[in-house]
Amino acid sequence: MAVSTKPARKKVVALAGGVGGAKLATGLQAALPPGCLTVIVNTGDDFEHWGLHICPDLDTVLYNLAGLNNPENGWGRQDEVWTVLGEIERFGGENWFRIGDRDLALHLRRTEWLRMGLSLTEVTDRLRRLLAIPSAILPMCNEPVRTLVHTDEGDLSFQHYFVRRRCEPSLVDLSFVGAASATLSPEVHKALNSAEIVVFCPSNPYVSLDPILSVPGLRDFLRQCKAPKIAVSPIVNGQALKGPASKMMRELGEMSSPLTVVDHLGDLLDGFVIDRADADLSDAVILPALVTGTIMTDLSSKERLAQEILTFAATLRNIPVPSAAA
Amino acid sequence: MAVSTKPARKKVVALAGGVGGAKLATGLQAALPPGCLTVIVNTGDDFEHWGLHICPDLDTVLYNLAGLNNPENGWGRQDEVWTVLGEIERFGGENWFRIGDRDLALHLRRTEWLRMGLSLTEVTDRLRRLLAIPSAILPMCNEPVRTLVHTDEGDLSFQHYFVRRRCEPSLVDLSFVGAASATLSPEVHKALNSAEIVVFCPSNPYVSLDPILSVPGLRDFLRQCKAPKIAVSPIVNGQALKGPASKMMRELGEMSSPLTVVDHLGDLLDGFVIDRADADLSDAVILPALVTGTIMTDLSSKERLAQEILTFAATLRNIPVPSAAA
Repeated sequence: MAVSTKPARKKVVALAGGVGGAKLATGLQAALPPGCLTVIVNTGDDFEHWGLHICPDLDTVLYNLAGLNNPENGWGRQDEVWTVLGEIERFGGENWFRIGDRDLALHLRRTEWLRMGLSLTEVTDRLRRLLAIPSAILPMCNEPVRTLVHTDEGDLSFQHYFVRRRCEPSLVDLSFVGAASATLSPEVHKALNSAEIVVFCPSNPYVSLDPILSVPGLRDFLRQCKAPKIAVSPIVNGQALKGPASKMMRELGEMSSPLTVVDHLGDLLDGFVIDRADADLSDAVILPALVTGTIMTDLSSKERLAQEILTFAATLRNIPVPSAAA
Repeated sequence: MAVSTKPARKKVVALAGGVGGAKLATGLQAALPPGCLTVIVNTGDDFEHWGLHICPDLDTVLYNLAGLNNPENGWGRQDEVWTVLGEIERFGGENWFRIGDRDLALHLRRTEWLRMGLSLTEVTDRLRRLLAIPSAILPMCNEPVRTLVHTDEGDLSFQHYFVRRRCEPSLVDLSFVGAASATLSPEVHKALNSAEIVVFCPSNPYVSLDPILSVPGLRDFLRQCKAPKIAVSPIVNGQALKGPASKMMRELGEMSSPLTVVDHLGDLLDGFVIDRADADLSDAVILPALVTGTIMTDLSSKERLAQEILTFAATLRNIPVPSAAA
């Protein structure tokens, strides 16, 4: 491959949801000059809890990009404490979704600002500025879009399925309630318009990426977009590294395989990244494929993977390779 | 005095606001059989903070009657911790009104229930049941009535005057905004209707008792009420034991004296309780007066004062003296 290695300030847009998405976003932020990364984040998981507006995926991205995340489980705050939760239990409140004291402060601020009339995009930008995050973080839209999980035990809102029921019910189908009324925000529109590389993070295709793609106009926008679009498989060696993606694939009658991700997103993609453990599948991928180590254990492995993805994307369009040294 | 000492189940209503009020309410609860005490609490101090509905006087009464209050300052929770406040500061939030982590849980529950459409009376009753408090605790009304402090530096909402400005501006006048639209709740109406003794706790007459008395109908109801009505002076030896009552009296051109309290509330009262330190004033009190130790330092002194007040009230109408042994 004739790859230019000249560093460049390239506008990179990442689509993310969940811990895998936040990890790769962290790598991309480290690999790029400040201000070059925009992360568009799933808000289909958002819900009301303790009377507060909770945005689990936005929070995971915020905490990861600020270096404040719990390094063990990838979500929530490091050095978290749980005094309020204990008292909420005393007052008969719900405890199946565990909000730590540090985490709670963000939910309070967000809820207060939303009630004041700010949009979720404005609120998120305030939060990322207060956390001194150099990347733009955008909710997929400002309108409420809620992932509804149709299971063999009935319909469950996403957090009830994911946290309260620990993904135990069998998946039948998914709906993104409210998507028809959602609109591309000016900020998402502008980010996609100026994107020079688009990365689909290794997030669950059904409940992290599909909600983003359910926002009217976004899928068409991506299809028309000239930037190379690369997805990273969330499935490694037949298993999701985290979360219910594998289980969902099997329940939907699909193989738990990177190839299922390609089938699902393929018409939007120009390239696909699979783990070395799945190297034998690379010939079956109908797209240009990068085979590399995709398991992100520390900042160095996140940044290394991000840099390889950026280089791979650049080769697809023969554009200069972005670099943090630019 | 011919005092009957026969114990009896008497319905006692206490009007309270602030720490002194909560202390005497605790004594009355200890001195009476369970279920005999109703505390009607000032809500003129209520305000919105961190997007939550805060009721400082209701909380002080709840925590004191549940035995959960901070024993040092009389308000807030014992063994309090402050993780959320530190994080709120990180996110640029207000920190002049310090909400501890344990305290915060109650504000979250209350706010969630109010947003669900429950009345403040219903919410308060839920909270006191969850805290296993045997006394009824009633907000003075369900409608928002807000104490506005007119000062030489302009108008300040109560918490801004009291906490943020530490009562430094000089008091000119007070308004109870919204009082004209407030109504006696059925619960307050019923409690006053069946009251056999009414106690005005040693609370600030201007900003704790006057807001309660500003609820339309309440003052007339008390005047017509046959139960003996006793007030306890919040001024001892020329000083308020806590809070700005003395400073306010002077700024309004009054003496900082129990006699000023009698002047202020006298037409509603049948008896007045002053501290031994003010025994020389007892002849100047235009009402039957009980001179006793009014400083409440522990549960025993609270209960002893409460029992003396109940006995004093009983003598005024020659009714049996209530007792916890009934």
